[in-house]
Amino acid sequence: MTQPKKRTTIILFSGDYDKAMAAYIIANGAAAYDHDVTIFHTFWGLNALRKEAPVPVQKGFLEKMFAKMMPRGADRMGLSRMNFAGIGPTLIKKVIKKHNAMPLPQLIEMAKEQGVKLVACQMTVDLLGLKPEELIDGIEFAGVAAYLADASEGNVNLFI
Amino acid sequence: MTQPKKRTTIILFSGDYDKAMAAYIIANGAAAYDHDVTIFHTFWGLNALRKEAPVPVQKGFLEKMFAKMMPRGADRMGLSRMNFAGIGPTLIKKVIKKHNAMPLPQLIEMAKEQGVKLVACQMTVDLLGLKPEELIDGIEFAGVAAYLADASEGNVNLFI
Amino acid sequence: MTQPKKRTTIILFSGDYDKAMAAYIIANGAAAYDHDVTIFHTFWGLNALRKEAPVPVQKGFLEKMFAKMMPRGADRMGLSRMNFAGIGPTLIKKVIKKHNAMPLPQLIEMAKEQGVKLVACQMTVDLLGLKPEELIDGIEFAGVAAYLADASEGNVNLFI
Repeated sequence: MTQPKKRTTIILFSGDYDKAMAAYIIANGAAAYDHDVTIFHTFWGLNALRKEAPVPVQKGFLEKMFAKMMPRGADRMGLSRMNFAGIGPTLIKKVIKKHNAMPLPQLIEMAKEQGVKLVACQMTVDLLGLKPEELIDGIEFAGVAAYLADASEGNVNLFI
Repeated sequence: MTQPKKRTTIILFSGDYDKAMAAYIIANGAAAYDHDVTIFHTFWGLNALRKEAPVPVQKGFLEKMFAKMMPRGADRMGLSRMNFAGIGPTLIKKVIKKHNAMPLPQLIEMAKEQGVKLVACQMTVDLLGLKPEELIDGIEFAGVAAYLADASEGNVNLFI
Repeated sequence: MTQPKKRTTIILFSGDYDKAMAAYIIANGAAAYDHDVTIFHTFWGLNALRKEAPVPVQKGFLEKMFAKMMPRGADRMGLSRMNFAGIGPTLIKKVIKKHNAMPLPQLIEMAKEQGVKLVACQMTVDLLGLKPEELIDGIEFAGVAAYLADASEGNVNLFI
């Protein structure tokens, strides 16, 4: 190993808008500096990958409940603090716009364009009863083995 | 350093059932791929190591309060979101069972069998007034120096 | 690369007293073991760097709201759990004192003395409308590029 390949691998566990923003800002930055970048979405972090429009799929009762209670897509996620029953995200989006920063859905688009590998944790997809067609296009499905293969090749490894 | 030894070191700070599950799933995966794995339990993450049955020990007033307010053992921990006053964990455990996935107490057992080093942060044990006999068997007690010694030898380092 | 320089780089995203304590305890430990250490404060983690006394600055309406709702300085931050409307931090500070451990403001002082690089995320400073004079002295302002430059040089990288 003469020159280790730079690699950034992020587990996005959180379903919070602000934490997902942080994950995607770091991912986009790392991609701009030529790192190989993977975001592995697990548990509530999968919500960032859901399509905004409801997708008609067959589900059991528990799965229907989960689907209903979890936000559909990046734009609907709440804040980790100062959420104020949903007003917080609106405030944050206002200051993002005011300062010409990027809201989360655009950060996700940019990551895809930059070749960031977006992975949905297969185990959580199964547990929460999500169907592939409910998630945005251009993502992969994988498990902890694939995560470890990526993560152990680089040194910027974050759990968000 | 020709071939660095693969090593995964996780700080489990969180007392949430879902986050502890993620920590133990990664740890078990890494152990299966022959990493040296350590989970360093600090602050609320210590709750995962508490015995389920109450252990009669002498404690001061503050320590008694902490002991009472914190969940006794992995099976009693709540969710980081959608906890719904305790119904959330039941739902999660139901889908785990339905999909033949492993609940947290079994993941901890498996980690021990695979030789994952389970460490309790000595400083937090002291602060929260926990006694060694209140924690499960087969764990070590150590501080930040021991954590850093492990972490700086590998590159999969996570704070959960 | 014969002997990689040991380096610990922490993103402090959280505005919780207990999580900030964990970040600073790890940072101080790593500095004591001669790591190059950086704490990159972003989003709510910036609160740890705010001066306790209010600083009279010109702000827009949204920025004034954020400034009001966020705690001014390390000593005013809440707990990630068992906060109990503000009683939790008092309890924690009591047990910290009882066990001769260090409260957060002292941990921050110690980190500065040990040469830990404290960075405020420029983007978040702008978004939240904070002014440099509202933050404690001796810190740097930087962005994701500077973070990645530090992080990719070491292997203890944490997101807290």
